[in-house]
Amino acid sequence: MKLPTHFISCDWGTTNFRLRLVTTDNLEILAEQTVGEGVKALFLARPDSSSAERERYLATYLAERIRALPGAAEHPVVISGMASSNIGLRELPYATLPLTLDHPDLEWEALTLPDNRPAVLISGVRDALDVMRGEETQALGLAGGLAGYDRGVLLLPGTHSKHLQYETGAFTAFTTYLTGELFALLTEHSLLRQAICKPPGGAFRAEAFQEGVRAAVDQGLTARLFTVRARQLLSHSDPTDNFFFLSGLLIGDELRSLHRPGSQVFLAAGEPFLTLYRLALEEIVGLACIHCFSEPALDAALLAGQRTMLAAYVNG
Amino acid sequence: MKLPTHFISCDWGTTNFRLRLVTTDNLEILAEQTVGEGVKALFLARPDSSSAERERYLATYLAERIRALPGAAEHPVVISGMASSNIGLRELPYATLPLTLDHPDLEWEALTLPDNRPAVLISGVRDALDVMRGEETQALGLAGGLAGYDRGVLLLPGTHSKHLQYETGAFTAFTTYLTGELFALLTEHSLLRQAICKPPGGAFRAEAFQEGVRAAVDQGLTARLFTVRARQLLSHSDPTDNFFFLSGLLIGDELRSLHRPGSQVFLAAGEPFLTLYRLALEEIVGLACIHCFSEPALDAALLAGQRTMLAAYVNG
Repeated sequence: MKLPTHFISCDWGTTNFRLRLVTTDNLEILAEQTVGEGVKALFLARPDSSSAERERYLATYLAERIRALPGAAEHPVVISGMASSNIGLRELPYATLPLTLDHPDLEWEALTLPDNRPAVLISGVRDALDVMRGEETQALGLAGGLAGYDRGVLLLPGTHSKHLQYETGAFTAFTTYLTGELFALLTEHSLLRQAICKPPGGAFRAEAFQEGVRAAVDQGLTARLFTVRARQLLSHSDPTDNFFFLSGLLIGDELRSLHRPGSQVFLAAGEPFLTLYRLALEEIVGLACIHCFSEPALDAALLAGQRTMLAAYVNG
Repeated sequence: MKLPTHFISCDWGTTNFRLRLVTTDNLEILAEQTVGEGVKALFLARPDSSSAERERYLATYLAERIRALPGAAEHPVVISGMASSNIGLRELPYATLPLTLDHPDLEWEALTLPDNRPAVLISGVRDALDVMRGEETQALGLAGGLAGYDRGVLLLPGTHSKHLQYETGAFTAFTTYLTGELFALLTEHSLLRQAICKPPGGAFRAEAFQEGVRAAVDQGLTARLFTVRARQLLSHSDPTDNFFFLSGLLIGDELRSLHRPGSQVFLAAGEPFLTLYRLALEEIVGLACIHCFSEPALDAALLAGQRTMLAAYVNG
């Protein structure tokens, strides 16, 4: 069957909500609406409702938001993120790995919104020890960039970074790292905060950052964390340098498992993550093994993944 | 020269202050006084004073506290901990490693308090990347227990755990781990806290703890941290189990570097650390390589170390 000419992309996370009207073939964005309120706030507003009541409430909320999107017409909506979790629109089971990219077998369900609009709700993915919701759709949209390689790791840095193992046409495993969250906890709440100052502008201290990366690669994060404080006590180091030294320690520790001969790493990140992760990867896997997605490919990744799932819905 | 029959032990940390009147030969404690206010509070009360003013102020404070200790007479006082830091009584340079145990070359300085009482102020120790103040005196007091061994590691667990490398009669290097602080940050402030419940009583879940230790040994802390949350989402794990699983992850990660053939580990800890660290060490180095200090030896460690420094003062 033919794909519709347009679809509405819904990125419904824990703490944010974004709708975009998209031209299906070139993924051009014709209209956009962002609300700083995700499923969590809506769930907390009615914590005692049954799952059926919550689905009605969130489906009505979604239909109303779409009505306010110029040009939404009767186009279908494709929904990814925490909307399929136990605090979202409808809880769906996780898809299990491997995720074959030729025939993407993500879990999804067809719904009809109160305005009779067709909707596709995409579920998350699990493996034995980990879960994700949202990143799997983005990864699916980036799959084209990995197609020419036998194996590698796709990195999606962030507050909770994801490493997806790619092997002969499929994502086979993944790991979540709390790197960004640990950085915030340590700089705001730990003893180390006394030795750290966040730079006021966009100042970047590459040398201190790389020093942190090398320290983590050599000895691991936990054996070197206190060094941040000791640098201040022993050599009166610049607190801004320490900010980047700690960032290097955390990112270096996250990436050290990638230090394998011939490991290919695919990095999908906007700034500031792109600069930091690329620099750290240069230390760990070397320039020749790093592949960065272009900005347009990265921007379109979620939409491309949603289009793939829209096709699965239309054909299946 | 002969040691005095008694001395006053002063353990002056960042957030606490403890005086004990001690019989020198058997380290019997004849009187004790504890104040929940360390150098930090005293420093913050007069942040703008010069170092000479601060020394006068803290020396007077110390002399007054000693006057309130029954039987203090004219016995000398030996002071260890943060009192020798830049917010303490007098800032002393750090001693550098190796610390030979036959002739302990800790840095110390003789002072005279306002009541004309002789005082010995013990400094901290540094190596290239780390610092400690207080633990070095405790380690010195434990040195007798290591004397029969060629090499090993002395563990002093706590909010900031210390690992001291011991080799043929000397401490040669050490590393600080923020294990206890990280545990508090993660259970109180991170996303993981949703999956964790601190047990109300003294309940201990050895199996979940050991599972955490093994996970850290196999893959490292950061690759398995999110597992705490995933366990809840995927298998509705008991939040109390998760409390101990996280504790196992953190302690297992701290100790994994000890996994070397024939590594001898000397553990000096009270409860709850003794149980946790011993169990983790059983997984990592095996029962035959773990040496735990007896409770009396552990209790007397700081006093024994201070007595050694008192002897250095009397003879030096």
